Amino acid sequence: MKGLKLVIIGGGSSYTPELMEGIIERQSILNTSEVVLVDIAGGKEKLHIIKELTERMVGKCGFDIKISATMDRREALAGADYVITQFRVGGLEARSSDEKIPLRYNTVGQETTGPGGFAKALRTVPVILEIAEEMEELCPDAWLINFTNPSGIVTEAVNTYSSIRCIGLCNVPINMERHLSEQLNVPADRLYCEFAGLNHLSWITKVYVDGVNKTDALFEEALFKENIMKNIPSVNGSREVVNILKLIPSPYLDYYFFEKEMVKEEQESLNNGKGTRADKVKEVEKELFELYKDPALNIKPVQLSERGGSLYSEAALSLIQSIHTNDGRIHVLNVRNNGAISDLTEDSVIETNCIVNKSGAHPVAAGKLPEAVRSLVISVKQYEKYTIQAAVNGDRAAGFKALLNHPLVHGADTAQALLEEIIEANKTYLPNFFRGR
Amino acid sequence: MKGLKLVIIGGGSSYTPELMEGIIERQSILNTSEVVLVDIAGGKEKLHIIKELTERMVGKCGFDIKISATMDRREALAGADYVITQFRVGGLEARSSDEKIPLRYNTVGQETTGPGGFAKALRTVPVILEIAEEMEELCPDAWLINFTNPSGIVTEAVNTYSSIRCIGLCNVPINMERHLSEQLNVPADRLYCEFAGLNHLSWITKVYVDGVNKTDALFEEALFKENIMKNIPSVNGSREVVNILKLIPSPYLDYYFFEKEMVKEEQESLNNGKGTRADKVKEVEKELFELYKDPALNIKPVQLSERGGSLYSEAALSLIQSIHTNDGRIHVLNVRNNGAISDLTEDSVIETNCIVNKSGAHPVAAGKLPEAVRSLVISVKQYEKYTIQAAVNGDRAAGFKALLNHPLVHGADTAQALLEEIIEANKTYLPNFFRGR
Amino acid sequence: MKGLKLVIIGGGSSYTPELMEGIIERQSILNTSEVVLVDIAGGKEKLHIIKELTERMVGKCGFDIKISATMDRREALAGADYVITQFRVGGLEARSSDEKIPLRYNTVGQETTGPGGFAKALRTVPVILEIAEEMEELCPDAWLINFTNPSGIVTEAVNTYSSIRCIGLCNVPINMERHLSEQLNVPADRLYCEFAGLNHLSWITKVYVDGVNKTDALFEEALFKENIMKNIPSVNGSREVVNILKLIPSPYLDYYFFEKEMVKEEQESLNNGKGTRADKVKEVEKELFELYKDPALNIKPVQLSERGGSLYSEAALSLIQSIHTNDGRIHVLNVRNNGAISDLTEDSVIETNCIVNKSGAHPVAAGKLPEAVRSLVISVKQYEKYTIQAAVNGDRAAGFKALLNHPLVHGADTAQALLEEIIEANKTYLPNFFRGR
Amino acid sequence: MKGLKLVIIGGGSSYTPELMEGIIERQSILNTSEVVLVDIAGGKEKLHIIKELTERMVGKCGFDIKISATMDRREALAGADYVITQFRVGGLEARSSDEKIPLRYNTVGQETTGPGGFAKALRTVPVILEIAEEMEELCPDAWLINFTNPSGIVTEAVNTYSSIRCIGLCNVPINMERHLSEQLNVPADRLYCEFAGLNHLSWITKVYVDGVNKTDALFEEALFKENIMKNIPSVNGSREVVNILKLIPSPYLDYYFFEKEMVKEEQESLNNGKGTRADKVKEVEKELFELYKDPALNIKPVQLSERGGSLYSEAALSLIQSIHTNDGRIHVLNVRNNGAISDLTEDSVIETNCIVNKSGAHPVAAGKLPEAVRSLVISVKQYEKYTIQAAVNGDRAAGFKALLNHPLVHGADTAQALLEEIIEANKTYLPNFFRGR
Repeated sequence: MKGLKLVIIGGGSSYTPELMEGIIERQSILNTSEVVLVDIAGGKEKLHIIKELTERMVGKCGFDIKISATMDRREALAGADYVITQFRVGGLEARSSDEKIPLRYNTVGQETTGPGGFAKALRTVPVILEIAEEMEELCPDAWLINFTNPSGIVTEAVNTYSSIRCIGLCNVPINMERHLSEQLNVPADRLYCEFAGLNHLSWITKVYVDGVNKTDALFEEALFKENIMKNIPSVNGSREVVNILKLIPSPYLDYYFFEKEMVKEEQESLNNGKGTRADKVKEVEKELFELYKDPALNIKPVQLSERGGSLYSEAALSLIQSIHTNDGRIHVLNVRNNGAISDLTEDSVIETNCIVNKSGAHPVAAGKLPEAVRSLVISVKQYEKYTIQAAVNGDRAAGFKALLNHPLVHGADTAQALLEEIIEANKTYLPNFFRGR
Repeated sequence: MKGLKLVIIGGGSSYTPELMEGIIERQSILNTSEVVLVDIAGGKEKLHIIKELTERMVGKCGFDIKISATMDRREALAGADYVITQFRVGGLEARSSDEKIPLRYNTVGQETTGPGGFAKALRTVPVILEIAEEMEELCPDAWLINFTNPSGIVTEAVNTYSSIRCIGLCNVPINMERHLSEQLNVPADRLYCEFAGLNHLSWITKVYVDGVNKTDALFEEALFKENIMKNIPSVNGSREVVNILKLIPSPYLDYYFFEKEMVKEEQESLNNGKGTRADKVKEVEKELFELYKDPALNIKPVQLSERGGSLYSEAALSLIQSIHTNDGRIHVLNVRNNGAISDLTEDSVIETNCIVNKSGAHPVAAGKLPEAVRSLVISVKQYEKYTIQAAVNGDRAAGFKALLNHPLVHGADTAQALLEEIIEANKTYLPNFFRGR
Repeated sequence: MKGLKLVIIGGGSSYTPELMEGIIERQSILNTSEVVLVDIAGGKEKLHIIKELTERMVGKCGFDIKISATMDRREALAGADYVITQFRVGGLEARSSDEKIPLRYNTVGQETTGPGGFAKALRTVPVILEIAEEMEELCPDAWLINFTNPSGIVTEAVNTYSSIRCIGLCNVPINMERHLSEQLNVPADRLYCEFAGLNHLSWITKVYVDGVNKTDALFEEALFKENIMKNIPSVNGSREVVNILKLIPSPYLDYYFFEKEMVKEEQESLNNGKGTRADKVKEVEKELFELYKDPALNIKPVQLSERGGSLYSEAALSLIQSIHTNDGRIHVLNVRNNGAISDLTEDSVIETNCIVNKSGAHPVAAGKLPEAVRSLVISVKQYEKYTIQAAVNGDRAAGFKALLNHPLVHGADTAQALLEEIIEANKTYLPNFFRGR
Repeated sequence: MKGLKLVIIGGGSSYTPELMEGIIERQSILNTSEVVLVDIAGGKEKLHIIKELTERMVGKCGFDIKISATMDRREALAGADYVITQFRVGGLEARSSDEKIPLRYNTVGQETTGPGGFAKALRTVPVILEIAEEMEELCPDAWLINFTNPSGIVTEAVNTYSSIRCIGLCNVPINMERHLSEQLNVPADRLYCEFAGLNHLSWITKVYVDGVNKTDALFEEALFKENIMKNIPSVNGSREVVNILKLIPSPYLDYYFFEKEMVKEEQESLNNGKGTRADKVKEVEKELFELYKDPALNIKPVQLSERGGSLYSEAALSLIQSIHTNDGRIHVLNVRNNGAISDLTEDSVIETNCIVNKSGAHPVAAGKLPEAVRSLVISVKQYEKYTIQAAVNGDRAAGFKALLNHPLVHGADTAQALLEEIIEANKTYLPNFFRGR
């Protein structure tokens, strides 16, 4: 039987060795025969470094996996079985802009949450739709495993405008579950967590230990938080909120629940010359690529874990494994709602527990959202829908309505000003907004 | 046939002469035989002034309407046909506190919208429920016409906890309609407006002129805004927002759409020693009562129109007329949703077009909320529901969730701090929060 | 000011004098200047008789209303203000077939309810859509007042496929209300009834007398039924059902609640040579037209009331009056749901209380359907939607699903057989089903 | 570790050896240490026969599983891990009555579908609630695996009135899946079917082969039906219906889709002296118990497969295995909807795909019901809800509304007559209906 062909778009990313490690670990199950790393011209050098490192990683294990690197996406996609997208339109420069612009409006400056995520979505949606269109032609039965943020928006865009089967992934849920397992000192296989919400806006709504619903019991003890995600600073007070809501939030909820503190911290970091997260990542990346160049390195270096992508490979490859082997296991994924969350339309992409087999990912019914956070989720989903509309059609009114609906953008005047500044700052990447002008 | 008995709770208010004028104007239709003005001990002097003035007003017209004033609410309620509530728990002092506390958190300081409205609701809900309970005993078939703000929350509280038939009123919709009529230069009887939303959070969603839907056409021309409401400062930019949304908002929407500017203006006013709206109202009131004392005054003085209650009497008395005469006319009211707005639960109180006859107010189906403001309305309704829960049960967790859901409160930390400061500042009026401590 | 132009399609119907009487009675309000009677070639003689009679009726009153008769529908429609449709595709012959075919399957044989109504809808929908299309061209602002049965289905078809403003009418609700008024010995203006359901499948769900909800009280006494509708035989037991359901049903509900008895009665009538209702109507019509020919007759003859269309004119003309005079009165009409009944989609045509003004008919929110009849209404609405689909597209599968969903058709085999026999029997009128064969 | 304690209520049933076989087969996984067979006094002899046979079955395998038989239910329940209910209130005599009464009204005479199922539910619900109440006291953490029909109604009753975790089982879905697997010649593990509906009213709505959606493709070929269920006669025409609906129905749908034919067949069988299904089962049972008595018999005899319970043991024990081993596998079960089917309330019990682990069964989101059968499912669910209400409260009006809503009961008069005859015939088992008379 022919082995799997995996295509990694954004293959020159520093994360690729993590993915490669997962591919190698599962070689007996997945039988991968080819991995194609795709990147753009600007990433040529990094792509080369990654190709060589991953070849050494494969070589060390003695597996027969062909690694290739290309800037010709169409060539790469032809005949693919799985396409993993982890590209970043505009690179870290654009991310830096996404993080800084909002801060000028005393608004959260974050790459996926708030106006920064909006900007990223505007740049990313047109590209993912190009990829999906090429896949329809070149590998119509392949699965698109999307990691590119904002993952929920990107996945909903593909679902809405393409026939390609797309599943949105994020490493946050798997980290939340692991963290809870550690805090409770209960191995993961004795734990069953129900997730509900949107990408970077989800909660563990129920926790079962050995089949017994322990959700209420949990909140009598201090158990949650502290450094779940390396890339998100945590704030004091989280525990209290959690105890009142009786929900375990994604760490990204800090941007909503502790908005002022988060903004202040970001502004201080910027003003103190420490820069934003993008600046830190640039440094980390630089160091990582120095390491990656070392011809003696033939494993994923431990320093990669500083980068923030913990369990990233686990999330992606265990998903591919479930599809490939038809194992029916549960993953927390971004998929079409189909009624799983009653408060959202059927076509909304949500983040929740899904069973996965060869036919894809099927969300488990989650019922109604917890009342205390229901309106927050509805607001953000409305923002997401308008954002997709804005990105696809270059529609300023939709863009305005997107930001107006976002709970972290306060007021129509701010929405208007942010919109204009974001479009201007990203004009190279937003041809849809300048067509026919 | 026995004439009507009207009871005005908060009868010592400076607004009462406005109401009295409406009662007198409609004497041939309503045949009012008795008006009882009720107030608390602290308002005794004002009550006396109002009683004398309104007696002179009646006397001037030669009608046989008995005016009485009392601090014994039960005595007043016995046998009432209509009970109009316009009381203010804590008086203008409390209002001043409601307006100032939020400003310390860079949050809108307004008596009905945002944390100020929350504080007012906490004080008011227990009192309105006491009144409703007394009415169940003393005048179970009487109608409760509520003007006390926040009118939507207060009405929903009565609907939820009492069998008394209660209709919530506000003078904003009638002013919006009149204003539009002037702007379009179309007499009101050739205009049909559809309203949808919540109290102080509603929109004209459709405008018909001579039966033709002119909604889209309206937004091609500049037509809206400037001084609809005397008590709400308007801001630049409103027109642009309106043109994108294609909805005519209540002026209170400025607090959401131009939050920063509104907060800044309020803070500046406070810092410049001009005080808040409550301070201005105190002055106006003082002057009004000076006027009212004049034994020669036997009409509503024109200066009352400065007070901000334009068409207040028209709204109340035309409603009573529709009930009393069974005329089936349309009023914009705060009533149980009953499915009129599909996005809200059946038991939510909404503000929308209603037909009114002897059997009460029946909302006209409004369908789905306009998509661009749907999540805003859902969020505020969630806030309202938690607020009622907090007020009735003295439930701090519900109070926290109320503020957490309010789109003008940013973050859990702010919600928590506001909650504690509001409860502390209002402790005299919030026994439910201190019971059993 | 130019007077109104009314067009009556199916003008040669024996009902027209009834309509004419209403037009004459309201001449001071409506100021009708022209009535155009339209019919097809086969109805030429009747059309002529009606024209002459109505001219005599107008002449008697001395009004300046021009009556014309034509078989050129386009000519008639040009410049119309109101178009009243009361045509019957296939005439009474087709009705007779609609009544007889179902009886062969032990199924209700009725012109609007059950398979007979399905057949009638298949014939009628394409014709009403032709009319609506002509109106879009020739009188786009005119109102289409539809009486042609099945009125709900016909109205939903126009709403779905045309921009013409269409309101569906039926004389059943007004008769139910009058009947209740008599039974309760309470004048209509002291009564307020809430209706909910579909055409020929609706209920009075609430009854207020002098504003007081008397719904429950009503069912303690025997008050309902006996000969509300001349054209529907009533059965024993109705009262008991009504008392359990605490709902006052349209008399057409007898076909659902007493199906076997109704079928038996119809079959016996047919077997005893008495024929179906169509046969009786044919005789009545024959006699009526004999009367109509009398050159001395210049009023609506009393014998018309035997025909079954009681208050038909009142329903139509009072509706036109409300639109024309913008009076905002309540009528029970067939209109787009718009959320008024929560259990049905927004685009479903329902029968319920509406306020009517120049902008049209706006349904009052009715909330959830009574639980005991909810599934019945949902089933019939599903049947209606499939029926429209079948009629418009000549879609046999949709026709099968329509009958399969109808609560009076028992089983897929019966549905299939009925479908084929109905299509065959009506093939002259169903070109959509034979296109491209 | 202590082995499992299984309690089988209705242990004297001829099905028990089937269950026992499953228990034995899974001994290495489940480690059952005790099986308690419970029955009532009237079943004492059968219980004894079963006990001895199952002991021989265990003995043959040499396992250490203690079998006990008792008529003391409380004693049996104490400390149970799983309680399997397969009792039949009133035995086959009552079933015979359930099958015969409806036929007198030309209505389907079936033990679970239609008025027969209604009668069975009235007898069964009070008993299952007694059991659940005892479990709350004696084994509150045990799982109730219910096979007693009508399984959906019985499960919803337990969910509504008890805290016991209850899962409703049926062997139809597993048989449908196996049958499809055979017809398609595709092994079960390459097939993924989505089920939606209610017990004995469900459909396979989607079929995936090797992960590819083949649903539409299936209906181009003849593939479905013929003898899926031994106990349901199949009729001609099924295939055609299936092809139009593009849904694979439970064989019980024949009672809805081919009602007349099914009734005719049942009536003929009865009139020809062949009796009803109950009569056939009585004979089969008699023969089975003769076999069971044979002291040489130590396996489940092949003749049991004639009884109609194919894969009954597989369904029950594989479910217990998933709970016990926390394996997360998919089963088609009767569970609380929780939003999985958008058209039904969250608390409705539905039959659909569920993932099962130690925490229980979680339905996979099924979205909206297929439009063509949506109203049928809604009607039957309404019937089910009224039936539970009738059974629990002895409420005749609810019973009437139940039958009025049932698509197989035609008319209020029939509903009324059936209700009275059913209550009379079952009065021994319906104390709730005669309390306080």
